[in-house]
Amino acid sequence: MGEFELIARYFKRPPRGAALGVGDDCALLLPAPATQLAISSDMLVEGRHFLGTIDPRKLGHKALAVNLSDLAACGARPLAFTLALALPRVDESWLAGFSEGLLALADAHDCELIGGDTTQGPLNICITVFGEVPLVNGLSQALLRSGAQAGDDLYVSGTLGDARLALEVFRGTLSVPAPVFELARSRMEQPTPRVALGVALRGIATSAIDISDGLLGDLGHILTQSGMGATVQADVAAALVASRAAYAMAGGVHCDEISTEQWRSWALAGGDDYELLFSAPASARSQVAQAAESSQTVVTRIGRIEQERGLRLTDAKGQWLPNGYSSFDHFA
Amino acid sequence: MGEFELIARYFKRPPRGAALGVGDDCALLLPAPATQLAISSDMLVEGRHFLGTIDPRKLGHKALAVNLSDLAACGARPLAFTLALALPRVDESWLAGFSEGLLALADAHDCELIGGDTTQGPLNICITVFGEVPLVNGLSQALLRSGAQAGDDLYVSGTLGDARLALEVFRGTLSVPAPVFELARSRMEQPTPRVALGVALRGIATSAIDISDGLLGDLGHILTQSGMGATVQADVAAALVASRAAYAMAGGVHCDEISTEQWRSWALAGGDDYELLFSAPASARSQVAQAAESSQTVVTRIGRIEQERGLRLTDAKGQWLPNGYSSFDHFA
Repeated sequence: MGEFELIARYFKRPPRGAALGVGDDCALLLPAPATQLAISSDMLVEGRHFLGTIDPRKLGHKALAVNLSDLAACGARPLAFTLALALPRVDESWLAGFSEGLLALADAHDCELIGGDTTQGPLNICITVFGEVPLVNGLSQALLRSGAQAGDDLYVSGTLGDARLALEVFRGTLSVPAPVFELARSRMEQPTPRVALGVALRGIATSAIDISDGLLGDLGHILTQSGMGATVQADVAAALVASRAAYAMAGGVHCDEISTEQWRSWALAGGDDYELLFSAPASARSQVAQAAESSQTVVTRIGRIEQERGLRLTDAKGQWLPNGYSSFDHFA
Repeated sequence: MGEFELIARYFKRPPRGAALGVGDDCALLLPAPATQLAISSDMLVEGRHFLGTIDPRKLGHKALAVNLSDLAACGARPLAFTLALALPRVDESWLAGFSEGLLALADAHDCELIGGDTTQGPLNICITVFGEVPLVNGLSQALLRSGAQAGDDLYVSGTLGDARLALEVFRGTLSVPAPVFELARSRMEQPTPRVALGVALRGIATSAIDISDGLLGDLGHILTQSGMGATVQADVAAALVASRAAYAMAGGVHCDEISTEQWRSWALAGGDDYELLFSAPASARSQVAQAAESSQTVVTRIGRIEQERGLRLTDAKGQWLPNGYSSFDHFA
């Protein structure tokens, strides 16, 4: 099967919102009046962003999910995406699975595949995603990293640290009961982009980012770009590791086989969570709760933005904890 | 050097046209009223799209040039691009060269780097480029592959086949005098995207494509999508190999050391040319000439679009030639 047949068979569908989709030199998009276009690119490499053991359906899902997560962090509604794919060889069953997982998530978000590229090479998936953000009275409603204010509450969506726990099991440094691993693995392989929450937080959140490199590392970007500091309740974050409850329930195994410090570490610096971390004024707590409810997303208050620079951690008793956590760096 | 320092040092510059550039979850673009956004992605892999011997400055140029060439083929004016980069390791002198070549071409086309991604992995460069095409009375001015009409002239810009000649020298299947190789190599490593010509052809050309996989293969896309056939003057195309004149002039070597058939083959099916192939009505010859002049680009008439399906070749005497040329396929 050649390059063009591959595209036609697995990726080409009639254009919907786009004026022109797959199959010309460019795709053509006509953005709605009074909207900004939000654009983000993520490149996924085997061994870095996924393991060779991943089901291609789940990989198709994940490749788009991590991009939609960036739109969510900006409060943008998904419109379309391009896919550039380097493949070591044409493997039809892999392509069928990958495109099925990819296009299922795309359809769920009404996000159209409008173009891209395929080539032979070491497996590499590069998606560029496009979303729209309204202008209201000429002002962008996009959520940025730079708007956090002293006194704002700090929130996180969903759960934390499970992807890291699954990675440790794959690496062989940890052994957990099967139901715990399955839960953690699904969080690693099929993250849920918080698109509806991001859209619902427009006009409420003062800053937002998606957690890809670890909560504290990504919080650092908000603090730097907002010129602020923060205190984070480490044990509130650590309680958000979904695997922890599963672990406690699984077959009578004692939860304390994994140390408190270990749960904290995965929650605060695990990475690959694709949850939203955002700030909002304390006066907007009911609005945040409404946004969480309308988007059917659990949101937990985990700390506070402060004038004093730096990042401070407290435990369940309110005592200071040392911050020795480092976030994920692709070249560290 | 970590991921964020790498981006800050080599790629981050203050936003210009974009509302928000590198450094948030998304970049934000505000398209001008009554314009469509043209979008294209190209992924470059070592050994497929460039050789490991290429100067990183030239690779930076080429990676953006092949994307700008897609905008040119749509008649779009460049606006911005994202860059996703997988690197085996952080090599500062490579990065300095690559970003210099990339940003020099970007500046020449007023095309702003607005975001992207960096990760560790086998060298892979994925650029997604954005351009704008005006709507006139609600109608898109984009040049498509699908508009060729029977009786239209068929044109190609610039020169053909030199990149392929250089590749053959690198592969060791051919030996040529140094000045010939240098000329051919510069065409392979630093293609010139025909952006000004593409913009000038709006409203004149009935179809257009950029030649990346070989003239006849890319013409095939126009013919299929337009539902037309064509006759191409093979020896007019073969005369467009710039190396041929250089070869004839270089040190008294006889040009016929390379066969006529070989020159034809490189011109018709060489690939990596990044020239524009387009059709225009015979009544628009003076307008095509004006577009060529205003964009300072040589344009040559090489054939004609015909109702009769299929692709026919003639030699310098007007005799039919067999068409045994195959275009480049990344998975063939």
